[in-house]
Amino acid sequence: MNVQLALDRMTIPEAIEMARTVQDHVDWIEVGTSLIKEFGMDSVKAIKKAFPDKVVVADMKTFDNAKYEFELCYQAGADVATVMGAAPLVTVETCMDTAAKYGKTVMIDLLHTSADQQAYLFRYETAISCMHVSKDEQEQKGHALHSTFHAGELTALPDGLKLAVAGGITLQSLPNLLEMRPFVVIVGSAITKAANPRQAAFDIKQVLEQHKEIRING
Amino acid sequence: MNVQLALDRMTIPEAIEMARTVQDHVDWIEVGTSLIKEFGMDSVKAIKKAFPDKVVVADMKTFDNAKYEFELCYQAGADVATVMGAAPLVTVETCMDTAAKYGKTVMIDLLHTSADQQAYLFRYETAISCMHVSKDEQEQKGHALHSTFHAGELTALPDGLKLAVAGGITLQSLPNLLEMRPFVVIVGSAITKAANPRQAAFDIKQVLEQHKEIRING
Repeated sequence: MNVQLALDRMTIPEAIEMARTVQDHVDWIEVGTSLIKEFGMDSVKAIKKAFPDKVVVADMKTFDNAKYEFELCYQAGADVATVMGAAPLVTVETCMDTAAKYGKTVMIDLLHTSADQQAYLFRYETAISCMHVSKDEQEQKGHALHSTFHAGELTALPDGLKLAVAGGITLQSLPNLLEMRPFVVIVGSAITKAANPRQAAFDIKQVLEQHKEIRING
Repeated sequence: MNVQLALDRMTIPEAIEMARTVQDHVDWIEVGTSLIKEFGMDSVKAIKKAFPDKVVVADMKTFDNAKYEFELCYQAGADVATVMGAAPLVTVETCMDTAAKYGKTVMIDLLHTSADQQAYLFRYETAISCMHVSKDEQEQKGHALHSTFHAGELTALPDGLKLAVAGGITLQSLPNLLEMRPFVVIVGSAITKAANPRQAAFDIKQVLEQHKEIRING
């Protein structure tokens, strides 16, 4: 299980500073969509340069122009780039092809996809499938939305699916989510807006480690 | 009827140079998604600064974080910004609210939306609704895709809808499209990749003018 630190709504120097503060307790670093759209590929290049040993995720949210956009990300140093599952299938296919060519990874963001779309997208076994409650949905409905993502509802997830979970995840909502055995847990403001981000990241990582031990020993 | 010049897959200086070449024959200038993701808001700022009297469209393709992303665009000088119709409704609503606050405009990109989603989105009367064949779909299926968008199929479009059409539009496919009475015709490579972009823009604008005259006098 990996903790992915999502960096959004900040400048590139602020993003580097935040990642430096918490780097010992996070595994992957995400350059958020807001950084990409505000500062372009310089954001991805700067983060990869500052953290060459971390997996860097470019939250590109590609919906079209897949080859061009994914090549931008991978050439800028991203190890993973995101495509919207709601996009035309040819776009997702093109992202998969581009990732294969570069030896890199696709994360498919399932935000606002139907169950039918999800079932189809789960066929991409080398991709990471991201169950995502959007920022706008969180702000509309309040937090603790991941109650909708509990293990009982997820019998349809195929074995071996590389799952990511994202959207307003906190230390409190984490234990429930871990029942889904995610490959990646994406955390943004619960770390970046915490009074003590380093402590917050440590606490989250510790819950993951404990959960892993319980599963191994239990 | 307005011609919107879409600028994609080029640098900011190249985009300014291209827009300067054809500016007499286009009405709106679109900063393409690829420019935004490659260079950030500097692309929007540079285009608005170079063409303060043109309507500047930021093809942001917002899918989440609507208020933040739309404020970025409008503060950078965009007059219009785009949101995906496939996004959660709260995201589209937030774009509409942000546009109202700034006295600016939303374009809703209908790419990969269902008929039901479209019918709902057409309720936003102050928005421009964009019928869009994506680049990836064009590359998959070949050109002349706008044969699928002919007037006979569009009886469901409400009166007064501000329609935009986009995706591989050429001088040849234009007459058919004009039957839909679009408010905006978005043209990219048919101008930017033409041997003589200024002539190509002139030819497209002339077809629009002729069509307008026929409708007025006919």
